Amino acid sequence: MDKIKVAVLGATGMVGQRFIQLLENHPFFELNELAASERSAGKKYSHAARWYLEGNIPDRIKDMEVKLIDPEKLKADIVFSALPSGVARVIEPRFAEAGFMVCSNAGAYRMDEDIPLLIPEVNPEHIDMIEVQQDNKGWDGAIITNPNCSTVMITLPFKPIYDSFGISLVFVSTMQALSGAGYNGVPSMAIVDNIIPFIKGEEDKIETEVLKILGKFNGSSIEFADIKLSAHCNRVGVIDGHTETVSLETQEKVDIEEIKKALRDFTGEPQRLGLPTAPEKPVIVREEQDRPQPRLDRDALGGMAVTVGRVRKDPILDVKFVALGHNTIRGAAGASVLNAELLVNKKKV
Amino acid sequence: MDKIKVAVLGATGMVGQRFIQLLENHPFFELNELAASERSAGKKYSHAARWYLEGNIPDRIKDMEVKLIDPEKLKADIVFSALPSGVARVIEPRFAEAGFMVCSNAGAYRMDEDIPLLIPEVNPEHIDMIEVQQDNKGWDGAIITNPNCSTVMITLPFKPIYDSFGISLVFVSTMQALSGAGYNGVPSMAIVDNIIPFIKGEEDKIETEVLKILGKFNGSSIEFADIKLSAHCNRVGVIDGHTETVSLETQEKVDIEEIKKALRDFTGEPQRLGLPTAPEKPVIVREEQDRPQPRLDRDALGGMAVTVGRVRKDPILDVKFVALGHNTIRGAAGASVLNAELLVNKKKV
Amino acid sequence: MDKIKVAVLGATGMVGQRFIQLLENHPFFELNELAASERSAGKKYSHAARWYLEGNIPDRIKDMEVKLIDPEKLKADIVFSALPSGVARVIEPRFAEAGFMVCSNAGAYRMDEDIPLLIPEVNPEHIDMIEVQQDNKGWDGAIITNPNCSTVMITLPFKPIYDSFGISLVFVSTMQALSGAGYNGVPSMAIVDNIIPFIKGEEDKIETEVLKILGKFNGSSIEFADIKLSAHCNRVGVIDGHTETVSLETQEKVDIEEIKKALRDFTGEPQRLGLPTAPEKPVIVREEQDRPQPRLDRDALGGMAVTVGRVRKDPILDVKFVALGHNTIRGAAGASVLNAELLVNKKKV
Amino acid sequence: MDKIKVAVLGATGMVGQRFIQLLENHPFFELNELAASERSAGKKYSHAARWYLEGNIPDRIKDMEVKLIDPEKLKADIVFSALPSGVARVIEPRFAEAGFMVCSNAGAYRMDEDIPLLIPEVNPEHIDMIEVQQDNKGWDGAIITNPNCSTVMITLPFKPIYDSFGISLVFVSTMQALSGAGYNGVPSMAIVDNIIPFIKGEEDKIETEVLKILGKFNGSSIEFADIKLSAHCNRVGVIDGHTETVSLETQEKVDIEEIKKALRDFTGEPQRLGLPTAPEKPVIVREEQDRPQPRLDRDALGGMAVTVGRVRKDPILDVKFVALGHNTIRGAAGASVLNAELLVNKKKV
Repeated sequence: MDKIKVAVLGATGMVGQRFIQLLENHPFFELNELAASERSAGKKYSHAARWYLEGNIPDRIKDMEVKLIDPEKLKADIVFSALPSGVARVIEPRFAEAGFMVCSNAGAYRMDEDIPLLIPEVNPEHIDMIEVQQDNKGWDGAIITNPNCSTVMITLPFKPIYDSFGISLVFVSTMQALSGAGYNGVPSMAIVDNIIPFIKGEEDKIETEVLKILGKFNGSSIEFADIKLSAHCNRVGVIDGHTETVSLETQEKVDIEEIKKALRDFTGEPQRLGLPTAPEKPVIVREEQDRPQPRLDRDALGGMAVTVGRVRKDPILDVKFVALGHNTIRGAAGASVLNAELLVNKKKV
Repeated sequence: MDKIKVAVLGATGMVGQRFIQLLENHPFFELNELAASERSAGKKYSHAARWYLEGNIPDRIKDMEVKLIDPEKLKADIVFSALPSGVARVIEPRFAEAGFMVCSNAGAYRMDEDIPLLIPEVNPEHIDMIEVQQDNKGWDGAIITNPNCSTVMITLPFKPIYDSFGISLVFVSTMQALSGAGYNGVPSMAIVDNIIPFIKGEEDKIETEVLKILGKFNGSSIEFADIKLSAHCNRVGVIDGHTETVSLETQEKVDIEEIKKALRDFTGEPQRLGLPTAPEKPVIVREEQDRPQPRLDRDALGGMAVTVGRVRKDPILDVKFVALGHNTIRGAAGASVLNAELLVNKKKV
Repeated sequence: MDKIKVAVLGATGMVGQRFIQLLENHPFFELNELAASERSAGKKYSHAARWYLEGNIPDRIKDMEVKLIDPEKLKADIVFSALPSGVARVIEPRFAEAGFMVCSNAGAYRMDEDIPLLIPEVNPEHIDMIEVQQDNKGWDGAIITNPNCSTVMITLPFKPIYDSFGISLVFVSTMQALSGAGYNGVPSMAIVDNIIPFIKGEEDKIETEVLKILGKFNGSSIEFADIKLSAHCNRVGVIDGHTETVSLETQEKVDIEEIKKALRDFTGEPQRLGLPTAPEKPVIVREEQDRPQPRLDRDALGGMAVTVGRVRKDPILDVKFVALGHNTIRGAAGASVLNAELLVNKKKV
Repeated sequence: MDKIKVAVLGATGMVGQRFIQLLENHPFFELNELAASERSAGKKYSHAARWYLEGNIPDRIKDMEVKLIDPEKLKADIVFSALPSGVARVIEPRFAEAGFMVCSNAGAYRMDEDIPLLIPEVNPEHIDMIEVQQDNKGWDGAIITNPNCSTVMITLPFKPIYDSFGISLVFVSTMQALSGAGYNGVPSMAIVDNIIPFIKGEEDKIETEVLKILGKFNGSSIEFADIKLSAHCNRVGVIDGHTETVSLETQEKVDIEEIKKALRDFTGEPQRLGLPTAPEKPVIVREEQDRPQPRLDRDALGGMAVTVGRVRKDPILDVKFVALGHNTIRGAAGASVLNAELLVNKKKV
């Protein structure tokens, strides 16, 4: 097939750079446009962006001109949004109105009633909210979002447990990587020999997004999952990879081995469809007593798998475990690209 | 009064060095003997030990001869034990039998039926178990223990909440400092750009020790507190200072401000008695949204205060907060010295 | 004597906070005014500043109103400047003109012909340039500067070597702490599991400042020392404490033990005068093979001593060693306060 | 061709693991045997070794039995030695005597008169020392060594400068990664918020190895290069990648641009022969003012290229620059594998 032309909004930041990396040589997509704020617009990408990732800017990208974030200036069918939430709130609807499919990593619209909040392995059927959204808003395009980075790492392992045994209560405490705050987000003076037990807005995101994602789309809206969730969010001095400790209560009483089996057997629509960015398995279960660890496990299956370890009995509830995933791949750019692949497969674009 | 002669067992390690630091110029105690394993015995302290703390070995200590850990070789009334648990199991009873009061930081005997597990602000009355112990064992001396470092940081703030409102359920997730594992405990290759979601035996210690400390001494044994506790323990790249996120259910429904007031007003026996190592307040409550942090708060009140922050409503249970304290001071050597001060005050030595 | 009223310009930043810390309970000075940019002016200090140091803002300071940086608004005889270089360039002369003694930590005027660049142990006699400066500029006040943080750590040990044996060539490579770049200077993403072999302008500062400080004041100007110096400057993931490796050629051939003796015996005007911030010894020589180290040695003698170690034969030149000092105390605020103490003693204020 | 059977001695450590990684699917070699100390011998590799690298143990390797390090027990033509120096001193000669080609990363024999110390891009002709060695010792096999990790990073860029312009003096100061000390080499307590300005024996290695490698093989022995070199070695909190600052004097006066051109144009025998592990270019020159940096540049060209940056005039000598390379790949296992590839190509095995 002819490749679909795509643009990246906010192309110079950390998530923008991951989009560029993941879209290089993509079988469905051709990265046709890079857009960023006025400060960068008009410059060559290699002048506008300070490349933060290992290796070099892909050769083809270096000399591309960075454009303004303006629906009239960009030629593309899909735009990937790595915009800050405040900017996204204003700009993403303009793109959707102008007919673009907006695959957004921003938090601005995730919890809006007619905006799909997608993890293709978990709730692919929510994609049909696009029609509801287009009807409501009168748009030709649409906005499709992926969850906050700390939400993804637990929602993926929750899915098979929720489907098989039900989940009623969850306590989660996160240890989140620095890249989640953006390149300049956490000063080194704040984190060397230190941790920060606070991330603005983060606990609220986890406590609500999970319920929407595991909710049921009834044809017109989402009925939220009936789970109670309490989160503590912490920043630690790790470059990439969010680690989360989880204690949960299942509805149906269940053996630890059954939980592990459900996690190991879990597979989803992207795996069945063979989407290019889909990992072979969405969840890896490890048996070592001290895994997962961010430096060792974040890049598992191209950074698209969540690794779960220490699955064991919780002395109060039913099960506890540790979940870990790459926050700027599975938790951001990779999540968004996988959403776009699902859109293409489901002929939404 | 004449100073009481004391010895440190395991004087060359990290906790041993903290003992030396805290006993320097102590108003009750004179550090009379340093003891360590055969490898060190017979050497000058400055040759036997590699000093890990800021500054230098106190001048008086440098040239002291390190002795063997042998009750017949040491002149002292109190011995502070910074021994590894396995060694402590064998050696501490010999000292108690020989008439020494053993203030132990080791895990070996903490949960034994007739061994007091003391935090002087929390359960000073458990000190009377010493007589039970001496009767049971036929010892002239006794073993008195302080809790595991991760236990102390939550049990101190639990005390006023438990007394005023009751506590039924606790979920805790820790981010523990490197010094807790000893100087050679965590290789740098294991922790730079990483965290380790596992500390051997640690979760079990928290889950049991809290119940004993908050339990009731009925004159012959401890009736454990009826609390259910679930712990996740993690190692992070911080030198000193354990940070712990806590969600808890109180028995009596209570307002967040009442919890804060109880924490702020909390004071204990060591404060009333004016024990030398007692902090002015055992618990500090901070209102900033991002505190406590280990590098900024671990040294509060000489490292003997626990700092609590982010006291807020838990969406499932009643309250959540973050607690932090210095693991080798409040969580180890300082805890043990405070125990010894209580012994002296209560004329147990 | 009555205390001299002083102000801190740039009071909210990291060096500003160190000034506040060092001026608390100072025997000569009363910190009377805090000044900062328009963003902070008019606010209470505790609202304007985010306190970065261990412990809390001193109680007396918390509620002080932050003033504008305006010579007409501030009541003080000495102002300590922790301003960024660009701002200092504009503002410091206004204060000097208005009659203030400006003890500046900024780089703006350090190399100006009639501005003293002082280390009181090294070139106290340069203080007499104040009269030259006042004549030249027609000012009632004056600007007195302290060196760049990386310059101080080597110039202090150079002084006794230079005086006794002469120095002709120096090769230095630095490993500088994060605090030297200011709180927001180095993003954590830039330095975790990394080093940065570049600090803007730093090499040039070292290569020139040393020559001025070791130069000779001939009554009207400084004759620079005839030393050739080459510097490499690197940023490493250390909170405080610059470490520098030095290889140098002396003019007179000399034994390593003579070098060590000269370093050990070194004492200066502040020690002779007993200035309050003067360390007992400006240079500490350690014999361990692996010292100095920033975490262990930066706070030596209140952060005002430079620790030198590994003094040994250089296979090409004459001697090599490692020097380390606290960059925001000995290398910034402490240096400036010591300068002010010398001014007071020499009746320049 | 049939693959050559190879063994790894010391297969469970960090360099041993890199050997396994680099030998997986190697076009010349088949990894046939894994050998380690008695503690590991007889176990499956996955039980004997704790895998330190990203990802998992290659499947084929997991179940291989670890053998004793005994020439009679191992079937291979080449053995790669990742043994500690003391063990290597005893064992490597036994293998050489038994007819094995020993490609050793150990320091034990590097400076021995008839042992080649090889960097294939720099001194491939030294390989002919093998015959001298075999004559001297009466061995059927031979020992071939690669340099210490900190030596390689500067010797590669020195080669084209030395050949074109001569080098007379070198001052180098290193910032070396943690992996260079082995997995347990540096405790985290020693390096978090710290650097260590000392690495045992390292300065001496650099100061001598460079002269041998750049020396001339006259058919019977090596005439050392007439270069004077002074090194400072430091350990920093970086996982992988040694960074080194270099000031050097050339014999012929030369322009900075000529130096850069020589570095950029540099290519060697492995590139001409297309050896499988040879990087496309042995030296990469970067123009950014703040590169190379370990996290960003260590993996350049599979970890086999050295990246040089900040090439500029030295104010005393002729040129200064920063060099960086991956210490366990280019500086250890990769260096050794490249040596073995040269042996095969030159029909020495």
